Amino acid sequence: MVEVKDKPEADTNGKRREQMLAPDSLLMTFGADEPLALDCGAELASYSLAYQTYGELNADKSNAVIICHALTGDQHAANIHPVTDKEGWWETMVGPGKPIDTDRFFVICVNHIGGCMGSTGPSSVNPETGQAYGLDFPVITIGDMVRAQASLVDRLGIRDLFCVIGGSMGGMQVLEWATSYKDRVFAAIPIATAARHSSQNIAFHEVGRQAVMADPDWRGGRYVEEGTQPRKGLAVARMAAHITYLSDEALHRKFGRNLQDRERVTFGFDADFQVESYLRYQGYTFVDRFDANSYLYMTRAMDYFDIAADHGGDLPRAFEGTQTRFCCVSFTSDWLFPTEETRTVVQALNAVAANVSFVEIETDKGHDAFLLHEPELFDAVSGFLSAAAQKRGLAPHDKEH
Amino acid sequence: MVEVKDKPEADTNGKRREQMLAPDSLLMTFGADEPLALDCGAELASYSLAYQTYGELNADKSNAVIICHALTGDQHAANIHPVTDKEGWWETMVGPGKPIDTDRFFVICVNHIGGCMGSTGPSSVNPETGQAYGLDFPVITIGDMVRAQASLVDRLGIRDLFCVIGGSMGGMQVLEWATSYKDRVFAAIPIATAARHSSQNIAFHEVGRQAVMADPDWRGGRYVEEGTQPRKGLAVARMAAHITYLSDEALHRKFGRNLQDRERVTFGFDADFQVESYLRYQGYTFVDRFDANSYLYMTRAMDYFDIAADHGGDLPRAFEGTQTRFCCVSFTSDWLFPTEETRTVVQALNAVAANVSFVEIETDKGHDAFLLHEPELFDAVSGFLSAAAQKRGLAPHDKEH
Repeated sequence: MVEVKDKPEADTNGKRREQMLAPDSLLMTFGADEPLALDCGAELASYSLAYQTYGELNADKSNAVIICHALTGDQHAANIHPVTDKEGWWETMVGPGKPIDTDRFFVICVNHIGGCMGSTGPSSVNPETGQAYGLDFPVITIGDMVRAQASLVDRLGIRDLFCVIGGSMGGMQVLEWATSYKDRVFAAIPIATAARHSSQNIAFHEVGRQAVMADPDWRGGRYVEEGTQPRKGLAVARMAAHITYLSDEALHRKFGRNLQDRERVTFGFDADFQVESYLRYQGYTFVDRFDANSYLYMTRAMDYFDIAADHGGDLPRAFEGTQTRFCCVSFTSDWLFPTEETRTVVQALNAVAANVSFVEIETDKGHDAFLLHEPELFDAVSGFLSAAAQKRGLAPHDKEH
Repeated sequence: MVEVKDKPEADTNGKRREQMLAPDSLLMTFGADEPLALDCGAELASYSLAYQTYGELNADKSNAVIICHALTGDQHAANIHPVTDKEGWWETMVGPGKPIDTDRFFVICVNHIGGCMGSTGPSSVNPETGQAYGLDFPVITIGDMVRAQASLVDRLGIRDLFCVIGGSMGGMQVLEWATSYKDRVFAAIPIATAARHSSQNIAFHEVGRQAVMADPDWRGGRYVEEGTQPRKGLAVARMAAHITYLSDEALHRKFGRNLQDRERVTFGFDADFQVESYLRYQGYTFVDRFDANSYLYMTRAMDYFDIAADHGGDLPRAFEGTQTRFCCVSFTSDWLFPTEETRTVVQALNAVAANVSFVEIETDKGHDAFLLHEPELFDAVSGFLSAAAQKRGLAPHDKEH
């Protein structure tokens, strides 16, 4: 029995604004003397990155793992979320004795630049105007996100990363790390992702953006100053996106054509079906924890992602000379990032004789499988990381420092 | 090269309103003494059906073919459309010498009850109030649509239909005809359809409805009186739906990641990619030819469709005793109504030893394949109809009457 409600009870948006201004996270601030060079040609003159860490950095700083979060994720991978009060989004994966074992590794998860959970983004104050950036925030790319993460890692005094891991947009960042910082990444685990965003995926993102922008409360992106919020538009965007995260089979298994708290259809436009009620709930809870403009920026960053295009149209060339060990993971029922996309990455890696293993996991859970209880995924990550750690000379439960 | 524009040049909504009030179509009106009994329990006390016919009815009235249109189609299957000035939506299929040969058959295409091209629907005047029905229009079902068509056929003095054919929602009506009027349908061709709307499809419809209802210009459905129109909401609904009508492969083939009239991405939220421009065009041209409330009603009718549920949960029972010859068609790349759905229908027909052929057509065009140039579809329909006509004793090019 899936518990579904049409609307959440508490409006937690105030809490989200608090997290934006003063996050319950570590915060690294870069001054105007250390601007972030962006792919669009502009520079972000000063910026902050909110991040969480789990586990401890070892003496030779060789056990750092970066987790890259997905489109609507954030840095709260493995702690109670300060806005939603729910468990972290990757508690299944990260913790003592878990696949990303915090007894062994020092785990860093950074809210992406452009995000809305403490890192500088479109709802942050633009120092030039004293008001929220809105659409004056520069359009950022996956490359920019990773460049910002690299600045953070530098500040932490870490040169080499033991591993970079992430799913979906997080997986894009893993690939970006592995191609732009080849000699700093020992192991990489891109999950349910692609080397470029497909036409269909751009189309779905465009629908979401149009839904946000169609909401008169969006106010051309200046809703923060105007005291409004494009709740309905963002909820519709989320509902459309949410369908793409699941699979036809999973929806059928979870909801089928079951009715919501009623015996018969009502011949009206209420949420007669459980799946409608579930979707509405997904839409309306999302707007309390996510910023509409950040949604535009994050989706745009994914749309622009195309590693081959950045390397003369030649994907293998992007990986040339890599010494990184790759574990590429896909899910059979993921139709947003189908296995074929991962296969393309694996073929490019094979073409340059990289060290790569490819795990396609049989599941009906769709794209979201990387966030769910998926024992095969846990086993794959756990096994791969253990072997890589051994190769790297990281003793099990290495805590001497 | 696909021609795409962000917005259409002419606002043809005035023309649509004209068609609603006085259609360039045949119009059959049923008075208060012939109400339409609806599945919701209510009656529609008086109503009109706008329809087109092609070809001529033969002397013994045995050559009638009903074409059932899809969600956003209408009666203008094979003539220049009075609103869009474009060719009819099934010109490829219907005409002299075409698969549905109008030299041979008398073809009827009815705008569904609840529609917006002349048949009574939510934007028609409610005789009780003198104003547009809006959401006071009763929620109708696929069964209601078919019952209305049957009334029209009765009025035309036709008892038995040679064939009922249609794709998508039209295919649902074909199945409804074949189960509710078993002894009146000689041949049935359900294309790219299902015996019940899936959870994922209900979810997509719900997103569309939420997009419409989120538009403040929807005005709780009373936009006609208030002189507004939920253009943005309906456009977003159409964009989301349109993606589901295509396939990942078709989008990749047509658009890939090609940019629209530019050499480089603009690092902004304009339609950089052709697929974005195409989608916006699809959305904004749609609102000029379709009514937002009708969109709500048509999607709801599909959601409610579940033939097995109407027969004690037993799909074969719905077809028991049928003498109809079926030709069930699906498309390999249709993910909205996958082949599996058609297979379920075919299995039910087999279970009652019905006369059924099953054609799965290999194509990358997705759900929309039934509307496109698909020679295998033409051959299947043409061959099936010729054989059925022979069986029925309809001589080729039978025109004596």
